[in-house]
Order: sequence, then structure tokens, then C-alpha cells
Amino acid sequence: MHTLLRKHLEELIELTDAEFEYIASHFQLKRFKKHAILIQPGELVTHEYFVLKGLLKTSATDDDGKEHILQFSMENWWVSDYQAFMTGGRATSTTQCLEDVELLYLSARDRHKLCAEIHKFEHFSRLKVTSGFLHLQRRVMALLSNDAQSRYRQLLEQYPSLFQRVPKSLIAAYIGVSRETLSRLHV
Amino acid sequence: MHTLLRKHLEELIELTDAEFEYIASHFQLKRFKKHAILIQPGELVTHEYFVLKGLLKTSATDDDGKEHILQFSMENWWVSDYQAFMTGGRATSTTQCLEDVELLYLSARDRHKLCAEIHKFEHFSRLKVTSGFLHLQRRVMALLSNDAQSRYRQLLEQYPSLFQRVPKSLIAAYIGVSRETLSRLHV
Repeated sequence: MHTLLRKHLEELIELTDAEFEYIASHFQLKRFKKHAILIQPGELVTHEYFVLKGLLKTSATDDDGKEHILQFSMENWWVSDYQAFMTGGRATSTTQCLEDVELLYLSARDRHKLCAEIHKFEHFSRLKVTSGFLHLQRRVMALLSNDAQSRYRQLLEQYPSLFQRVPKSLIAAYIGVSRETLSRLHV
Repeated sequence: MHTLLRKHLEELIELTDAEFEYIASHFQLKRFKKHAILIQPGELVTHEYFVLKGLLKTSATDDDGKEHILQFSMENWWVSDYQAFMTGGRATSTTQCLEDVELLYLSARDRHKLCAEIHKFEHFSRLKVTSGFLHLQRRVMALLSNDAQSRYRQLLEQYPSLFQRVPKSLIAAYIGVSRETLSRLHV
């Protein structure tokens, strides 16, 4: 199971066997069934998850009861309620399994410790969060431009296999359009 | 001028005098007049800027000619076209001075070098980009929820002095509403 994590880390940094073994020793494996909820609003969020297998969604429900999807997470993706994970606060979003999933989880304390102990791991973490930041900038611009076609294209680029794996209602909740608008976009 | 930079870095990391002097030696001072353009679409973006004084906006114009504001930058803020800066690509946004500004600028190569040489500087950079990431997540959720009031409140929290410094049309272009909707929000 740790082969996938090593491959993922080594896309950005080189590690010796000893370094990788040390990093990997801080992760633990967990399996969840489809529909299981990993994080829910109000909880303290002490862990983040690296997805080995399966698909999850992170979403929040607005005052009108409408669900908005912040992120889908699949193989090689990291997921948590990062606002709560990074600040020690409580979750405002829900992370739920859309398929059976296998995850490696890491505590906030160990993320912090590994970053402090291993410069390369902090470098990896910086590059990862930077690419998340850049992706969100593009998403904000596409939302401000009211450009649903761009948001649809961005989603396709980011998660090529997603469209075979989730119902269209969830795609619409990510893009921020109605089901009807969505079907006009990708027909 | 470097006192402000030191204070800013030391909000997150502790530095010896020698470490700070070394870091600071990679920055150079630049002054621009109100209305000057620092970055424009199509240019290579080799630098980022730390704002000592003044206010800038980073924006993009959509296909309908409408301007959308991605970011305001004021004292203690970092600004660039980060998509281009991080990837070596060309700018898709415009960064323009809304007041006379004083900046310290750093090249992409030196950002990379300082992160590689000084673990604490990489740590600082990771925390900074993480807080940008978390801010954008909140902005995406507020855009998806079509909750202009939240976006207005977030903007106030992030830039308390902004509202005295920019015309309301620019506030509206950041929030993604018309001038008319904006005046209904904050009256």
C-alpha cells in the first residue's frame, strides 16, 4: 500500500529508503465503505487522508439547504477539512465516501513534525498546497466570470475519470449550476 | 525598509540577524506611481512583490470585457501572477497600482533558492500559501452559495482598511456583484 505513497512523494522529491520508511511510519491504513462519513461539521479535525483507492466528496450545505461541493478526492489526492486541520478549529464541511475507499491517514501533529524534521517533506507540502492554491484561483476567476463552461473544463482536466464515477447532480453541485444548465454544457 | 520584511517574516519564523540579512539581500526596492502596471497578460512573470506601502489590484477581464478582481494587495501582502510565476508561464492577469507603492521584489529563482537553502524560509512560504489556499476555499464556498453578504464580510476581515481606499466599483468587481447589489449589502 505504501508504494503508491512513495510514488506520489517522488513525483516532487527524491527520498532514500530510510527517509521514506520514516515518513511512511507516521501513516496508518483505513478502509471505509461507500456512504461512510469521515468528517462532519462541528467535529475537531485531527487528521488528513491520502487516497489510495476510491472517491470522496467534500461539501457544505448553505442556509437554504443546498449542497455545494468544494472538492472531489480520488487516488493520489489529499483530503481533510483543511480550515479546521490547519487551525485546530472545528469542521464546517462534510467529507463522505462516494465509493468504497482505502486511505492512509496522517495526524496534524505528525504533518507538522515531518515538515519540521525533513526539509524535503516540507518542500513537498509547499508545492502541493501551491498547486491547490493555483487551482482555486482559476476556480474563483471562472466563478466570478460566471463561466460555467470553463468550470466544467477545469473539472474535466483535474479529474479526468470523474465523469464516469459520479452522478451528474454532483458535477452540477461542484460547478455551481443547475442540472438543466449542466446538460446544456456537455451535450 | 527591510524592517517591515523582517517583522513580517518573524510573525511565523525566528531568524538570526545573519539569516535575515542573507534573505534580505535577495530583495530589491522598487517604487511605482499610482496607475502604473506591474504585470500584464502575455508577459513572462519572473518576480513576485512584497508590498511595503500602497495598494494594488490583480484582475482579469472576461470575454465580455468585464473586469474581475482576484486580489487586492496592500502593506505586508505578496503579489504576483502566481500561476505564471510558479510555472514559468505567461501572465493571464493584470496587476496595477491603485496608489503610489513601494515594493520589495524577489525573483522566482531566488524564491526557489532561498526555500532550498533555508528550511525556515520554506516553512514560512508553506504557511503563507496555506493561508492563501484556505482563504480561496472560503471564497469559492461563498461564490457557490451565491452569498454576496459573506463575500463582503470576508473582504472586510481580510482588508479592514480597504473600504476607505478604493472606489465601490472595485469592491463590487471583487465580490462579483453589481454596484446596485453592493449598495444594498452595506447600507
